[in-house]
Amino acid sequence: MPSNEQSGSGNQAAPQSDSPSTPQAKLIVQKFGGTSVATSERMRAVAEHVALCRRRGDRVAMVVSAMGKETDDLLHMADQISVSTSRPDGREMDMLITAGERKAIALMCLALHEVGVPAHSFTGSQAGFLTDANHRDAKILEVKPFRITEAIAEGVVPVIAGSQGVSPDKNVTFLGRGGSDTTAVALAKALNADSCELYTDVSGVFSADPRLVPRAKKMAAITFDELLEMTATGCPKPAMRSVEVAHNHRVPLHIRSAFTWESGTLVVEDLADLNPEQDNLPETAMEQPIIRAVTHDLSEAKLTIAAVPDKPGVSAQLFRALAEAGVNVDMIVQNVSDAGLTDISFTVPSSDVARTEQVLSDGVLDAIGGRLLPTEQAIGRVSVIGAGMKSNPGVAAKMFETLAAEGINIEMISTSAIRISCVIEADRAEQAVQTLHTAFGLDAA
Amino acid sequence: MPSNEQSGSGNQAAPQSDSPSTPQAKLIVQKFGGTSVATSERMRAVAEHVALCRRRGDRVAMVVSAMGKETDDLLHMADQISVSTSRPDGREMDMLITAGERKAIALMCLALHEVGVPAHSFTGSQAGFLTDANHRDAKILEVKPFRITEAIAEGVVPVIAGSQGVSPDKNVTFLGRGGSDTTAVALAKALNADSCELYTDVSGVFSADPRLVPRAKKMAAITFDELLEMTATGCPKPAMRSVEVAHNHRVPLHIRSAFTWESGTLVVEDLADLNPEQDNLPETAMEQPIIRAVTHDLSEAKLTIAAVPDKPGVSAQLFRALAEAGVNVDMIVQNVSDAGLTDISFTVPSSDVARTEQVLSDGVLDAIGGRLLPTEQAIGRVSVIGAGMKSNPGVAAKMFETLAAEGINIEMISTSAIRISCVIEADRAEQAVQTLHTAFGLDAA
Repeated sequence: MPSNEQSGSGNQAAPQSDSPSTPQAKLIVQKFGGTSVATSERMRAVAEHVALCRRRGDRVAMVVSAMGKETDDLLHMADQISVSTSRPDGREMDMLITAGERKAIALMCLALHEVGVPAHSFTGSQAGFLTDANHRDAKILEVKPFRITEAIAEGVVPVIAGSQGVSPDKNVTFLGRGGSDTTAVALAKALNADSCELYTDVSGVFSADPRLVPRAKKMAAITFDELLEMTATGCPKPAMRSVEVAHNHRVPLHIRSAFTWESGTLVVEDLADLNPEQDNLPETAMEQPIIRAVTHDLSEAKLTIAAVPDKPGVSAQLFRALAEAGVNVDMIVQNVSDAGLTDISFTVPSSDVARTEQVLSDGVLDAIGGRLLPTEQAIGRVSVIGAGMKSNPGVAAKMFETLAAEGINIEMISTSAIRISCVIEADRAEQAVQTLHTAFGLDAA
Repeated sequence: MPSNEQSGSGNQAAPQSDSPSTPQAKLIVQKFGGTSVATSERMRAVAEHVALCRRRGDRVAMVVSAMGKETDDLLHMADQISVSTSRPDGREMDMLITAGERKAIALMCLALHEVGVPAHSFTGSQAGFLTDANHRDAKILEVKPFRITEAIAEGVVPVIAGSQGVSPDKNVTFLGRGGSDTTAVALAKALNADSCELYTDVSGVFSADPRLVPRAKKMAAITFDELLEMTATGCPKPAMRSVEVAHNHRVPLHIRSAFTWESGTLVVEDLADLNPEQDNLPETAMEQPIIRAVTHDLSEAKLTIAAVPDKPGVSAQLFRALAEAGVNVDMIVQNVSDAGLTDISFTVPSSDVARTEQVLSDGVLDAIGGRLLPTEQAIGRVSVIGAGMKSNPGVAAKMFETLAAEGINIEMISTSAIRISCVIEADRAEQAVQTLHTAFGLDAA
């Protein structure tokens, strides 16, 4: 097929149906993460991919993250200067961090120009991302992508800085880590794009971490509910917030690799809606196993308050105090009362342990009674996830039996309609994931 | 004197005449160059200086350049990607380069917060710098510093990104290398500031390059005319364009060191206007020698077209063609006609030689006649500068005699009312500067 950038001699001809500038052409938002654009070689590879998509007849809008470890580097510089505080001014931190994406979008445009693709960079503000003024972690209020729409109409590829916007008081805001995925999803919604492709350094969503489980399978498709449970329980990509936004606004995602360029994992509302032929799915994709994935998470710690008087309001008092301190409590287990006393265990991110202990010693323990046992840092959470378990009893029993057969002790349990999580010792997590992956029939043939 | 940032307990008292927020307080624009803010240690030193100025009762607005060699690093990244062109897209280059100043202003604000000074960063656009759309080298059209005025009124130090603005079509623009000085001068004018201090890595303007002439003297004061001639003939700082803007708008400058913090060189319209006592000048400053400074420049090359028919319009044809190609011709010398033929010599920046030779061979030589001699790359220009020479005949003669006594051959001569320049062999330039510095009585006692 002819392309705008390669068939200059054919430009005088009438527009063709597969030309990027015709309304019939698909509009695809493509987001590239930090590792995908970490070097000039990677920028070139991405630019060539975009040129190829255009030659195929698609229109493309790009969202780009800061290159490689740039955001870490900028944060490190701020730490070197702000030695007296662990929370430097948010407005200035956002001004600082968003510089990373600016560099990336400008260099990406230069890379696109190199392969003959017309491209314009846009900051979050220029692209119309209006956010609240909650610096470091701003939320998108509205997207007014006038300049983006205009660029696309002119046959130009807009290259938008990920994870940034402008507040009502005209200050630069940063959407937080992983915010570029959210930018891409919100842009796809605002542009009414045909799809939103999140390019990353893995080739899709796997049934378990392939580093732990060599026979883990890449899933051709997954539901939003399943992916949300997976990202909540240790699957690192994509960022959970972007999946939520995509879910809420019904933006179909395609999570795929910027290194191998193979087809990745489609994320949809309902797998039954997929057309196996059109969506290029393997035939087995529609025969869903009950369990789709096994995830694990080693980033939490477990606290236990022993011998708490078992009376109404105690839990509420404890967890309200933690919530007000911004502690992100995950799992909670309360033991059966014994002689009017009970034990309450809960998990928090390891980074929140110090704050949690502070809140407890600052009056909460005195108020509710009980004593704090030493915090357990070396815990692991393993989860099995699958929409199919809703109509399949016995999944929990099978999970517990499988762990018991390996001699792995279960310390805490929590469940949702499509997930069961167990807290175990951290150094048994790898074995647990492998065993469960096999037991639930997920190993690749 | 009490300060806003250190006497918190006195805040309930009525405003004092020396408080930064009172209208009586002086308003000073302070610009810090790349080496002044190259590291976190340097940022801290600059922040402490600003805190000190505020304790003295001054109000401060800061302009900051990109850190150290950051702009070079960004240009290098662009070169790695844009391999097929030496002129990558200007809009994208400006988006890229301006990221450097954004980082610097954010980190500078964090450094100011560390020493208790309230500070807000502003991009060129946020600070109201409206420019033309001439990317890479945009010109300021207007400064509307509403947000800056507001910050100052609130007792906040505004920290403005140097060398950037926004074009009428809302794109980010870069004012070019050395543009931060221009930003500072334009801001000082727009704010009607009491002075504009350009902090750099030298302690002021010297009577010659101190690396060549150990007995070169720092000048306590200099006129705009003299400084313009000096920057035009090799004195590297401040950027000539900023001196022109300051001259045109009558913004007094103070060129000084961000390393020693000593008083530097005042730049004014007329030295006679200075009050030696108030301006802290050495007593001898008012007894101006005829010559104030000796400058040198090794960055140019000399081209000669021999045997050109000596008829009207030849020079015009030649130099119009070069001007249209953007070649920056500096000195021009045309020999006395001999048998209807003449030689035309001129100097251009070494970086423009290839383009110049191209223009000449692309028809200009054929049109005007004559032949191009091999380009001389190894030339040096030495200049003596001083407003006093206007009323002192014999300066030129003394300069030529001094060079002749050293056996240094003069290849070209050009003069202005307050400057005489001679082109000589490059490897004699150092000797020429030293000899002239002594001959004109400039050596420090």
